[in-house]
Amino acid sequence: MKHISRQDISEQERVFRLNLINSISGFKSANLIGTVDEYGHQNLAIFSSVIHLGSNPPLLGFIMRPSTVPRNTQDNIMATGKYTINHIHSRMIQNAHYTSAKFEKEISEFEACSLTPEFLNDFRAPFVKESKIKMAMNFVEDIHIKHNNTKLIIGEIEDIHIEENLIQENGIVDLNKGDTVTISGLNKYHKAFELNEFPYARITELPKFMS
Amino acid sequence: MKHISRQDISEQERVFRLNLINSISGFKSANLIGTVDEYGHQNLAIFSSVIHLGSNPPLLGFIMRPSTVPRNTQDNIMATGKYTINHIHSRMIQNAHYTSAKFEKEISEFEACSLTPEFLNDFRAPFVKESKIKMAMNFVEDIHIKHNNTKLIIGEIEDIHIEENLIQENGIVDLNKGDTVTISGLNKYHKAFELNEFPYARITELPKFMS
Repeated sequence: MKHISRQDISEQERVFRLNLINSISGFKSANLIGTVDEYGHQNLAIFSSVIHLGSNPPLLGFIMRPSTVPRNTQDNIMATGKYTINHIHSRMIQNAHYTSAKFEKEISEFEACSLTPEFLNDFRAPFVKESKIKMAMNFVEDIHIKHNNTKLIIGEIEDIHIEENLIQENGIVDLNKGDTVTISGLNKYHKAFELNEFPYARITELPKFMS
Repeated sequence: MKHISRQDISEQERVFRLNLINSISGFKSANLIGTVDEYGHQNLAIFSSVIHLGSNPPLLGFIMRPSTVPRNTQDNIMATGKYTINHIHSRMIQNAHYTSAKFEKEISEFEACSLTPEFLNDFRAPFVKESKIKMAMNFVEDIHIKHNNTKLIIGEIEDIHIEENLIQENGIVDLNKGDTVTISGLNKYHKAFELNEFPYARITELPKFMS
């Protein structure tokens, strides 16, 4: 086992540290967030930090980096209160990745990265037509994380649009069938294969463990 | 495309809603969090909500559900300020899953689920010996999310212990080589295979997109 101390981490050069700490938390979700500003200019950006916060009400969160550079996604959400979250599948990973380039505010990442904006059910923010699983989100709350000046942006799911065959009778969304990818670190995209599933864990029904 | 409205979500029975909303955010990280109470009783619990918050300082967060039942992990972190985060690999998914059963506080999930506590570098909280990638964490801040009464628990990485061959020269942790799994929904465990990686995205170096 290699031991890397807090001091070793601090003393590494920036790119090494970024790679290390961005990959050490494990696999991440892969989503595109679509917004518009007050004038209807469209914006699309990739996020690997979307997480489940609760089911009732249905809440998701994601992390915004400090506002030292323009953050169009954040500005647009604050201006309109609306955004979309769109799953990334294996045939759109390159398009999705390049939405992270620093385009001018007037440039739509949809156009620059060959993705198609789509408006559904009169929702103000654009969805990604190529995605098979997409959500309309209402902004609820943003929480400032003092320690590194980031923000947790919280939203409630207003609508889900999903290819019919990806949702099971018990409500489970089959991410593997939907070809949803997962991200590690800053730039690696992966496909997932199911190993196993286990029932709700009860102390009265413990298995004989194999290890 | 199937459309599921906010009202449809509310009107579904509880298990359907839990399955749907827990799987709709995408793939999640798979970690075991190890703690001790003031008297040294060990606790181990699985979390799929560990996320990267920032690299400098190196911060990770995870979500705690409302304290309507005893939350040993949270209580122990508040009492000692220390915890460990340990990656789950494919040969320990069943052991890891069953740490979620509601064991009495006096029962160590390490023992009940056939996992081995390990103490490294005089750190107070136990690591999981079977894990190949593990971190010592110092509690920094907990943030209350009003809207559903959950908490974001934030910690700083104090030490990383990692199998030597899993860390690349540029700092990237090779999660696939380390056999780290990813979780979807409440109970599905997956292995990941890398599809591709892309360089840091610059508007001056956009590729010709394939789609």
